[in-house]
Amino acid sequence: MEEQSFKTGIAVLDTSLFVNPDVRASFGENPTEALENFLFMAAQVPIFEFYMPPSIFRELQNFIEPAKIPADLLVYIHQKSPKKHEIMVPGILLYELVEDIRDRVNKGLRLAERAVRTAEGKSADDVIQDLRRKYREALREGIIDSKEDVDLILLAKELDGLLVTADQGAIKWADKMGVKWLIPERFKEYMHALIKKSKYLADSKQVEEG
Amino acid sequence: MEEQSFKTGIAVLDTSLFVNPDVRASFGENPTEALENFLFMAAQVPIFEFYMPPSIFRELQNFIEPAKIPADLLVYIHQKSPKKHEIMVPGILLYELVEDIRDRVNKGLRLAERAVRTAEGKSADDVIQDLRRKYREALREGIIDSKEDVDLILLAKELDGLLVTADQGAIKWADKMGVKWLIPERFKEYMHALIKKSKYLADSKQVEEG
Repeated sequence: MEEQSFKTGIAVLDTSLFVNPDVRASFGENPTEALENFLFMAAQVPIFEFYMPPSIFRELQNFIEPAKIPADLLVYIHQKSPKKHEIMVPGILLYELVEDIRDRVNKGLRLAERAVRTAEGKSADDVIQDLRRKYREALREGIIDSKEDVDLILLAKELDGLLVTADQGAIKWADKMGVKWLIPERFKEYMHALIKKSKYLADSKQVEEG
Repeated sequence: MEEQSFKTGIAVLDTSLFVNPDVRASFGENPTEALENFLFMAAQVPIFEFYMPPSIFRELQNFIEPAKIPADLLVYIHQKSPKKHEIMVPGILLYELVEDIRDRVNKGLRLAERAVRTAEGKSADDVIQDLRRKYREALREGIIDSKEDVDLILLAKELDGLLVTADQGAIKWADKMGVKWLIPERFKEYMHALIKKSKYLADSKQVEEG
């Protein structure tokens, strides 16, 4: 158990790291390659633990070819849900969520009204397609709007981990809760720095023991 | 401070008690009269304390004639906000709120789509009026959707009080949090029972002291 003294951190990973084309580019051409490359790097970082909520892992599985992911590397991403019945959050967050939703719901109604007004003489299908896009944008952007988002934030809080996500809603809530976060664009560099640090620590340990 | 031993409870009051016509009927013809009558009864119940969040009190003031409320009776309703930065709620509630909202947001979009489809050949104003009503119903019913609702629930939780409200959203959340609640329709009887209990306790105290 001597290695325990080397543990310096925990990261909680969102799918965007592997799925979002802008983000995963540094890791690989496609989600499977990005995940393989990440796992290869993670294996060289004994000082860090990587977590992913099972709900997020399920999302990721829609994008990767399971056969191509070596099982022995999969041990480097721990799957764990937050202790959602035990972990406590301050009541003020309920206000913020409720106010946030209220604003968005009103915005949704205004969009719907505008769609009705512009519908005349146009194809209903076109109007609806346009409405759907605008409505989803207005109601989801910058807000935690899914079980998966809450999983990410609460798990990072519980583990005092670094949340790696491109989701603006999750980042906003990480800030409300004092959770560390990192944009995925910088994560490959971060991994390289961790590998360097791991090697340095291992070398100095050998010197000590030698 | 001997009277402290008599304190057997706290109630947190919503405006519906005085404002909602179906509910306040037992207390009075109009909100002002209902409040006056309630205060008259509250003065006879030293074993109970009555609280109202300031946000709810402000709502109530839109319905009553301030000049008609005797100031000495107003001491029987304490105005206090919950300690929203200190009070903690379990993380699971964030999931429930987020899921609840997600369902409603989707329902709102379906209503908007239906409005666009039925708009042809009708007056846009009529379609919008109908949409507004349905949208508000779908998105607000049975959900905590305002700062005022959160104030009520968190204050009742903080004080371990009895929440008196007709709001279905607040009742649903009181149940999630293990907060006691009572429908306002039964509250006048409840007050009568409290008056009886207060008198009984006062009498038995006199006997003891005599």
